[in-house]
Amino acid sequence: MGKPGRVVYWNGEFVPESEARVSIYDSALMFGDMVFEMTRSFNGVQFKLREHLERLYASMKYVRIPAPMTIEEMERAVYQTIEANSPAFETDDEHRLMIDVSRGLLSIYEGIEGLTPGPNVIIADFPLRWTVASMGHLFESGINAIIPSQRAIPATLLDPKIKNRSRVHYLMANVQAGNTSGKDNWALLLDPDGFIAEGTGDNFLIVKDRTIISPEGRNILRGISREYVLRELAPQLGLDVVEKNIEPYDVLTADEAFMTATPFCILPVVSLDAEPIGEGKPGEVTSLLLETWGENVGVDIARQIQSWVAEGASSTGAPSPYAFKRQS
Amino acid sequence: MGKPGRVVYWNGEFVPESEARVSIYDSALMFGDMVFEMTRSFNGVQFKLREHLERLYASMKYVRIPAPMTIEEMERAVYQTIEANSPAFETDDEHRLMIDVSRGLLSIYEGIEGLTPGPNVIIADFPLRWTVASMGHLFESGINAIIPSQRAIPATLLDPKIKNRSRVHYLMANVQAGNTSGKDNWALLLDPDGFIAEGTGDNFLIVKDRTIISPEGRNILRGISREYVLRELAPQLGLDVVEKNIEPYDVLTADEAFMTATPFCILPVVSLDAEPIGEGKPGEVTSLLLETWGENVGVDIARQIQSWVAEGASSTGAPSPYAFKRQS
Amino acid sequence: MGKPGRVVYWNGEFVPESEARVSIYDSALMFGDMVFEMTRSFNGVQFKLREHLERLYASMKYVRIPAPMTIEEMERAVYQTIEANSPAFETDDEHRLMIDVSRGLLSIYEGIEGLTPGPNVIIADFPLRWTVASMGHLFESGINAIIPSQRAIPATLLDPKIKNRSRVHYLMANVQAGNTSGKDNWALLLDPDGFIAEGTGDNFLIVKDRTIISPEGRNILRGISREYVLRELAPQLGLDVVEKNIEPYDVLTADEAFMTATPFCILPVVSLDAEPIGEGKPGEVTSLLLETWGENVGVDIARQIQSWVAEGASSTGAPSPYAFKRQS
Amino acid sequence: MGKPGRVVYWNGEFVPESEARVSIYDSALMFGDMVFEMTRSFNGVQFKLREHLERLYASMKYVRIPAPMTIEEMERAVYQTIEANSPAFETDDEHRLMIDVSRGLLSIYEGIEGLTPGPNVIIADFPLRWTVASMGHLFESGINAIIPSQRAIPATLLDPKIKNRSRVHYLMANVQAGNTSGKDNWALLLDPDGFIAEGTGDNFLIVKDRTIISPEGRNILRGISREYVLRELAPQLGLDVVEKNIEPYDVLTADEAFMTATPFCILPVVSLDAEPIGEGKPGEVTSLLLETWGENVGVDIARQIQSWVAEGASSTGAPSPYAFKRQS
Amino acid sequence: MGKPGRVVYWNGEFVPESEARVSIYDSALMFGDMVFEMTRSFNGVQFKLREHLERLYASMKYVRIPAPMTIEEMERAVYQTIEANSPAFETDDEHRLMIDVSRGLLSIYEGIEGLTPGPNVIIADFPLRWTVASMGHLFESGINAIIPSQRAIPATLLDPKIKNRSRVHYLMANVQAGNTSGKDNWALLLDPDGFIAEGTGDNFLIVKDRTIISPEGRNILRGISREYVLRELAPQLGLDVVEKNIEPYDVLTADEAFMTATPFCILPVVSLDAEPIGEGKPGEVTSLLLETWGENVGVDIARQIQSWVAEGASSTGAPSPYAFKRQS
Amino acid sequence: MGKPGRVVYWNGEFVPESEARVSIYDSALMFGDMVFEMTRSFNGVQFKLREHLERLYASMKYVRIPAPMTIEEMERAVYQTIEANSPAFETDDEHRLMIDVSRGLLSIYEGIEGLTPGPNVIIADFPLRWTVASMGHLFESGINAIIPSQRAIPATLLDPKIKNRSRVHYLMANVQAGNTSGKDNWALLLDPDGFIAEGTGDNFLIVKDRTIISPEGRNILRGISREYVLRELAPQLGLDVVEKNIEPYDVLTADEAFMTATPFCILPVVSLDAEPIGEGKPGEVTSLLLETWGENVGVDIARQIQSWVAEGASSTGAPSPYAFKRQS
Repeated sequence: MGKPGRVVYWNGEFVPESEARVSIYDSALMFGDMVFEMTRSFNGVQFKLREHLERLYASMKYVRIPAPMTIEEMERAVYQTIEANSPAFETDDEHRLMIDVSRGLLSIYEGIEGLTPGPNVIIADFPLRWTVASMGHLFESGINAIIPSQRAIPATLLDPKIKNRSRVHYLMANVQAGNTSGKDNWALLLDPDGFIAEGTGDNFLIVKDRTIISPEGRNILRGISREYVLRELAPQLGLDVVEKNIEPYDVLTADEAFMTATPFCILPVVSLDAEPIGEGKPGEVTSLLLETWGENVGVDIARQIQSWVAEGASSTGAPSPYAFKRQS
Repeated sequence: MGKPGRVVYWNGEFVPESEARVSIYDSALMFGDMVFEMTRSFNGVQFKLREHLERLYASMKYVRIPAPMTIEEMERAVYQTIEANSPAFETDDEHRLMIDVSRGLLSIYEGIEGLTPGPNVIIADFPLRWTVASMGHLFESGINAIIPSQRAIPATLLDPKIKNRSRVHYLMANVQAGNTSGKDNWALLLDPDGFIAEGTGDNFLIVKDRTIISPEGRNILRGISREYVLRELAPQLGLDVVEKNIEPYDVLTADEAFMTATPFCILPVVSLDAEPIGEGKPGEVTSLLLETWGENVGVDIARQIQSWVAEGASSTGAPSPYAFKRQS
Repeated sequence: MGKPGRVVYWNGEFVPESEARVSIYDSALMFGDMVFEMTRSFNGVQFKLREHLERLYASMKYVRIPAPMTIEEMERAVYQTIEANSPAFETDDEHRLMIDVSRGLLSIYEGIEGLTPGPNVIIADFPLRWTVASMGHLFESGINAIIPSQRAIPATLLDPKIKNRSRVHYLMANVQAGNTSGKDNWALLLDPDGFIAEGTGDNFLIVKDRTIISPEGRNILRGISREYVLRELAPQLGLDVVEKNIEPYDVLTADEAFMTATPFCILPVVSLDAEPIGEGKPGEVTSLLLETWGENVGVDIARQIQSWVAEGASSTGAPSPYAFKRQS
Repeated sequence: MGKPGRVVYWNGEFVPESEARVSIYDSALMFGDMVFEMTRSFNGVQFKLREHLERLYASMKYVRIPAPMTIEEMERAVYQTIEANSPAFETDDEHRLMIDVSRGLLSIYEGIEGLTPGPNVIIADFPLRWTVASMGHLFESGINAIIPSQRAIPATLLDPKIKNRSRVHYLMANVQAGNTSGKDNWALLLDPDGFIAEGTGDNFLIVKDRTIISPEGRNILRGISREYVLRELAPQLGLDVVEKNIEPYDVLTADEAFMTATPFCILPVVSLDAEPIGEGKPGEVTSLLLETWGENVGVDIARQIQSWVAEGASSTGAPSPYAFKRQS
Repeated sequence: MGKPGRVVYWNGEFVPESEARVSIYDSALMFGDMVFEMTRSFNGVQFKLREHLERLYASMKYVRIPAPMTIEEMERAVYQTIEANSPAFETDDEHRLMIDVSRGLLSIYEGIEGLTPGPNVIIADFPLRWTVASMGHLFESGINAIIPSQRAIPATLLDPKIKNRSRVHYLMANVQAGNTSGKDNWALLLDPDGFIAEGTGDNFLIVKDRTIISPEGRNILRGISREYVLRELAPQLGLDVVEKNIEPYDVLTADEAFMTATPFCILPVVSLDAEPIGEGKPGEVTSLLLETWGENVGVDIARQIQSWVAEGASSTGAPSPYAFKRQS
Repeated sequence: MGKPGRVVYWNGEFVPESEARVSIYDSALMFGDMVFEMTRSFNGVQFKLREHLERLYASMKYVRIPAPMTIEEMERAVYQTIEANSPAFETDDEHRLMIDVSRGLLSIYEGIEGLTPGPNVIIADFPLRWTVASMGHLFESGINAIIPSQRAIPATLLDPKIKNRSRVHYLMANVQAGNTSGKDNWALLLDPDGFIAEGTGDNFLIVKDRTIISPEGRNILRGISREYVLRELAPQLGLDVVEKNIEPYDVLTADEAFMTATPFCILPVVSLDAEPIGEGKPGEVTSLLLETWGENVGVDIARQIQSWVAEGASSTGAPSPYAFKRQS
């Protein structure tokens, strides 16, 4: 109490967080027609912000949303948003940004009183702990990856390399993983060819003979964390890197496996459909990668997340940060 | 001026239309996770409202959004919304309803001050003339259907029988149709097998030897207007009906073709990729179907739309009612 | 005790049941190269035996196993086997036959002392109650069909219309269904196009507006029970029948669903991936079909199975009659 | 005569070879549900036994057959089997092992008197000469690879990387190759994408500009012989190695081609569908690989096989070691 | 000798047959860019000429060759060609017409001296006996249909409903059928889904329980002879007709099978890949259809063809009328 | 005038260019059954002639056209053709050769008077300027690549690595590109997997971070110019080269793109579906490659083509050298 409320950047202005709302006539709601990025900070410093923005601009280009400002202007808007929100954060919080760009109102709705045509640039900034509250224990016990019946949509139909909001099929995959016996089940999608694609908000990689193997950058988001592991951490540690088509057999015969995503960086995957991967516990290379990442950015990544859990939110083994509440 | 403003039903209350906005933390915006229906009236009487609501409930069931009210309660809410908005309508307006159901906030955002967990039921009511303003001339000159490079996503990956908002690929198809030479180009998608699927908001049918032929109800929305043509108008007129896989060859060798959708009911398609279908003008059966429909509901459907055009909006040959403005 | 033991027909002779074993050098074990049929009796009378044998001969023809005897000779062998085993049966038992035909030894193994070249005709006869012991309650509570990640192999690669033993993928589907939360989960496979195919030993049908709808006879076994429902029971009851491609959406919007297979004839399916079908309980048409079937053959099918359960085996909600024991 | 008979290891005991038989109620016969390995010796020394056993354990893991013993125990059982059989072998014989693991009886059959639940571990040991009797001339005249109409089943439906018995489609491919004009026709399967997969029990590789090119390890068994060629022989000889998708065009424009498999190690492929590959005779690199392999293991591989042929079995140009006898 | 030579219609003029040649710069030779029809007469009267011409015009429309004359003018040109050639025919000859329409010279070659821009209309007329010379015995012994490895190209990539010259893949299929053991092997292509498509110049149909079953009119030419059988002969004879997807299993379990094509009308298919269909000889319905066709047109179709064979050409079991000579 | 006319090599003889015509009974016209090569000279010296001929012989082998002469004889015939035509060329002309090999007459037409059985070898030689007349400005303004709805036929159905004439689908792609708004639109086909394949007579490559990236050599012609860029120019310039599957996303995020083909060597592609690639103008690496190529062969490639344009033909923004005239 006493802290000021969070605000959201909205086309050059700031609005209270609860007022950051999109018109039902916006193309974002009519067509899932919104591209976005989500970032995080380490000790308050944004990580790979420029890479996120470049991918955002590539997404806009692909779906033909005309860029409403230069990338430099966008970067300035991001920092203004962080500055505006900092008073509302705890000292041990990290800043999680959500940057949305929608095309705006469909033309037939442009005349509605009180509505402004697009595109819309929206930048929210909230504590990272929200996202990772249920994940603290996973650094030690690991995830059970579940291959659901739902397949990834291949890039030629709806390209996942575009970070966009038309992805209710990811929710369907989460529903299916949520119906599986056991706990800490996260969905891991196959593409229609049967190749491992990605989770519903995270990249999946395996380790075999100290080589890091990733699915080809085709039917997946080319995640910033995945790129950091493949292009920076692996060379730093002298680990080889391969991108190729992999299948469940390759996962079951791998030594280790892990997920990458911006909020948690790296989480071990210890089994596939309940069958152990390697020794069925977090692997050495996985741990080394996470540890080195933490050293590079000056944060003990797992411990920080576990500290947030300890303080407050109960760990409930939620299937993923994108879960929704079940009807009880 | 002087007329009261339109209002939108929002979980049991009415809010001004410009306030009908969805939180950026809602699953609808995070995942395109919203199902919906759009209806219209004839002379102020809603057409096939119950069928629309039943499809809405099937969509909710499929994506596992728990029904927030019974279908009867939903129907009452619809009529309350119409009643609340009627003073804001012109006497010659028809009521176009948009009924959205979103799953609501992702669980990690549920604690945000000022936000309420879902699901959300949203019912908007606005003049149909907005949607059809650019279409008056098409009843006479017809549409040129364009097969874009973008393919329909097959049902097994993201089922179009679910009327949902994850469909930025439809926008991509519209962009491609919009890049084609000529005018009145509407996208007509093939599915990955190369079968004719549907437009980006309308069903496509052909007529051959006085038999109405529709793509199978598989990789398409099973449109209410399509159902009305196949199950009520055709029998009324003694026309045979077939649902089967059709391909561009079948279209080019058909006698007639048309689109169906709620706002305009039936629009003739006179060419495919600029190559004439039949005689390259609206067909007899097409005209008969539209005319009979109008008689059944007591409205001259084409003339009503043309009258709205005459009064106001200029006809600009927009590719579809879902067009967005190009950057100039 | 006191009862004689069961015997198995083996190329014209009878061997004790426990001696009915196939050489490890037989093509049946080397390549899954064996075709088969499984039948049942009602009140001791074999049902549709001739149809089963005709399908067996079609399977042999397809895989080029030269027929070792005429179909009439095969029929006689079947009856001899039943006769030979009848003394070993309880009076309330029904005869379940398993007729296997293997190609026999691979040629490189033909010289092994003590082994005889093929083909081999094997006819076993055992009490039906074994197979259905765990199913008694399902006539009332119904099956929860689970769509596993494993897809059906399409006919062009390995035709399921051939009743053959190369089907470890069915076991994989059962494993996945067995990993799902809840109970009475039976696998229901999609084919690679996403169409509903079949269970791992049963056909799946739905009922909509009192029409019985079956997947096309393509990527499924054309089950004798399915044929009986479609070609005899439905006409007898004045029900329409349609064979077409169906998808999960069609199942979720159906009124009823059921499985057919020789041992249990008809079992209601009340949900798909835990989402209710129709009212979520056995449907009227389903019950009528089962009842009529029973009247036609003079056996209360459900009650007979339930009586066996009551007498002995505990009902454990096994996923299917083809389950294997889990490691504990 | 006078030699003792061969015995087969059966769950810890030895049984006469002709008694090594699997119950008709075993999952192996019900579902093709058995994984296996086949090895060979050189001068009586097993080759890559540990690699074979590791693959066997990967296969068990994939299909969820619980391991009935440790891999070390399995290795000991193998050596016991060899020891038990050695007296039955000629001095110039090599030991061919067949190690089968079946899941065992389906649970509904577990009560049958005289039968024991699984899993079953079966180890047979017989003279390699049986398998290769018809191949002696092929080291000089080479194989004509035939692309049959039957396609390989892709890994996502039934993974060939799992060495399992559900593979009647391989027999279908052999039937088709057997119907082709000419002699020494061995089937070479395409996968559904049209890429070269494998033979029906052997891997296929080509040589172009002294680089050995293998299909990717995806829709094929990752053969131990193939691995030996790619990872040991090629480096030893300074030859480059590439794994990539190849098509018939690549084969027809290659310099050489060969098959690898445990019994014969390497056999030249001199034509594809009767069209010569390279100069239409065994290639230099192929010969060098075979020769070097022989030197490494101290056996002239081709000559040994040819010596067995000379002694006894007539060479009949059989399509493959897995052939079955045609009906005459 | 003494007879005048045949002439070919060429854009309104007649040229000697050997001068009917197309420039190497014509799009027909550059891109296989030519559509065509081939007809025949019965007792000198053209059969279904109008239907052939209508299909020709549909083909032109599909590939966007601008029609160089009306369909009526085309029909007149056909009759002029017949008239011009009649003196060169034997009295017992039938007229086989080949009508080609090419787009003409590519624009970059239009300036070449002595060449004229297109389109080109070419009408040849030659004795039908050429085409059927090797087929006389097939009316009695029947064809062995061979499923080659080559698949039909699906309509979405290159529509076989367009009768066009880009079809070297048909020659590849013929090569493969020609490499098969036995004689009278005609290729029967599967489409990529594994459904029976067509021969390389003929349609394939089966008969089951006196119902004529044809593959759907999708990945096949919708042959005029096939249409005649399905729409005229079958109703005349009271036979049911079904068009649906069929597979090899359906063929092997059919009662009869036959090919249709303009030159021979109907030829029995008695086996598939050497496995008998029905009783392995021409079927009753097949014979009835051919006989009735002959009565309708006043020609004993089989006997006429056999008479031509008797007179001259030796019957050599050629795989199809489109065969090319093998290199000797 | 005064100059002698061009002649065409025809099976060992020379005929006037306008007489270089193929019989309508030739397999080339019946089945698109002709393989070919097209070459060019620089300063009158043929470029990579041997590589073209080797590919021609690979094409003949693949489609089983028996080679009518050795490759050395073919090479001599080429040079004879050039020599025979040189007097007809301007001094600044380059020689464009078209070498066609057809299988010849179908066997049923072999008896026609005046016709000779095949195969036929045809070598034409004409000024390169014809082909490139419309392209001069493209070196500076670049091509707009259009992804048409028409997909490339995958190699397993009709291999584009075989340079053959069955390719009316390329014309369909050109028609679609020609219907697009804007100018200098060249078709760029996707294969059925959605990967970038090739243009309708040219290869497509991109540049990213100074690495040249080409689609894998699978569903494309392995162009001689593409090979020269990848295997000779890139190493010469120290540029890395990668062959992998690429998609539209990769093109839109590339730095540069270009087409290669024999007549123009390299042309910049500056946009994809009107969306700029890189800076939307010819890229640095592209220009460097073209310049270096020119230096290697002693011709300023762009300037030479532009000089021909200036002299005569008007630049009309034709979609490709393979365009046909539109009907006006």
